[in-house]
Amino acid sequence: MGSDSPFLLAAVSLLSALQMGYLARRVGWSRMAHKVLPPSVTGPPEFERTFRAHQNCVEFYPLFLVTLWTCGLFFSEVTAAAGGLVYMIARQIYFNGYVRSSKKRLRGFYVTLAVIATLSLLAFIGILRGILHKYFDIHL
Amino acid sequence: MGSDSPFLLAAVSLLSALQMGYLARRVGWSRMAHKVLPPSVTGPPEFERTFRAHQNCVEFYPLFLVTLWTCGLFFSEVTAAAGGLVYMIARQIYFNGYVRSSKKRLRGFYVTLAVIATLSLLAFIGILRGILHKYFDIHL
Amino acid sequence: MGSDSPFLLAAVSLLSALQMGYLARRVGWSRMAHKVLPPSVTGPPEFERTFRAHQNCVEFYPLFLVTLWTCGLFFSEVTAAAGGLVYMIARQIYFNGYVRSSKKRLRGFYVTLAVIATLSLLAFIGILRGILHKYFDIHL
Repeated sequence: MGSDSPFLLAAVSLLSALQMGYLARRVGWSRMAHKVLPPSVTGPPEFERTFRAHQNCVEFYPLFLVTLWTCGLFFSEVTAAAGGLVYMIARQIYFNGYVRSSKKRLRGFYVTLAVIATLSLLAFIGILRGILHKYFDIHL
Repeated sequence: MGSDSPFLLAAVSLLSALQMGYLARRVGWSRMAHKVLPPSVTGPPEFERTFRAHQNCVEFYPLFLVTLWTCGLFFSEVTAAAGGLVYMIARQIYFNGYVRSSKKRLRGFYVTLAVIATLSLLAFIGILRGILHKYFDIHL
Repeated sequence: MGSDSPFLLAAVSLLSALQMGYLARRVGWSRMAHKVLPPSVTGPPEFERTFRAHQNCVEFYPLFLVTLWTCGLFFSEVTAAAGGLVYMIARQIYFNGYVRSSKKRLRGFYVTLAVIATLSLLAFIGILRGILHKYFDIHL
């Protein structure tokens, strides 16, 4: 890759992948603390909340990556990378909150949704501009 | 990105990410309708079918993105984007069918498999051609 | 894409996507063998181990793709592609082992973690070098 490569998007993607690995590890630690042996995924409420918190992060991770990269490549790399960092912090608040109680998951979760909505909107603008330019010769 | 960027692949990826967000929302609505509080994932049959329908979409989503982009970048962007739209429609038919009954999930599911098989085959052809060209100086 | 495109990363990504499809199929076969009808995900221990083995592969797949591509684009494509092949073999050993017993999942699993840690470290080096070059004009 040349020196104009999307290093910030790559850095945020790598950090978020490591965070996903860390959250998977948290589920493993919760298994040990509550003596829930694989392949079981049921047990004390705290374990089940930890397990579901991780599952929700897994469900949203590809969706997050798509909005991060489409916003970053087609609208603004710095904006997307900043949004990605906010998403990661909000995911951590979500996860830590959910481990304590189901209600405490909500605050962080709403922030992740706001980030995804924002990145999607900006990506949409960038892609639409690109399609109008490339296929219809309309310059905005 | 320049004006020759893969805008169609980006557009289909962004739309499919929004669809994944919408399907996650459907699970949330089903939770409310059937009073299944997080972190529980068991409840009335309709809720459990809705939950599993979403899980199956999640399991296949990265796989779909890989075949969409490898086919789009190494074979044909328009073909891949068209296949991606068919995949999204089939996923919606799958999801709506599965919510009604387990049997009704099959029709849409088979279409998603056919799209993934087609995109994979075309991507394989494009990548093989590229590898033969780059590493073996064989031009097909 | 030009003739300098990352064909090896694309090839490994496509192969790993097909492997994920095959592992999903294995869960389907296990459903049939043990008469576990969708949407149920509980049943005989062997089915539950097969199901969890697949779920774990799903949880790690986007994380694997991110480390594969960041290492491949920003450090070395050949190294990343080789790591990706090792990861795929280790995933298969993990899956086949887990189907037989929970303990037999560990050997393959540790290898997948080692691959992800190695790819992440190399990707980190490549991205850091790129950021220092692009934003701080420091050449390593």
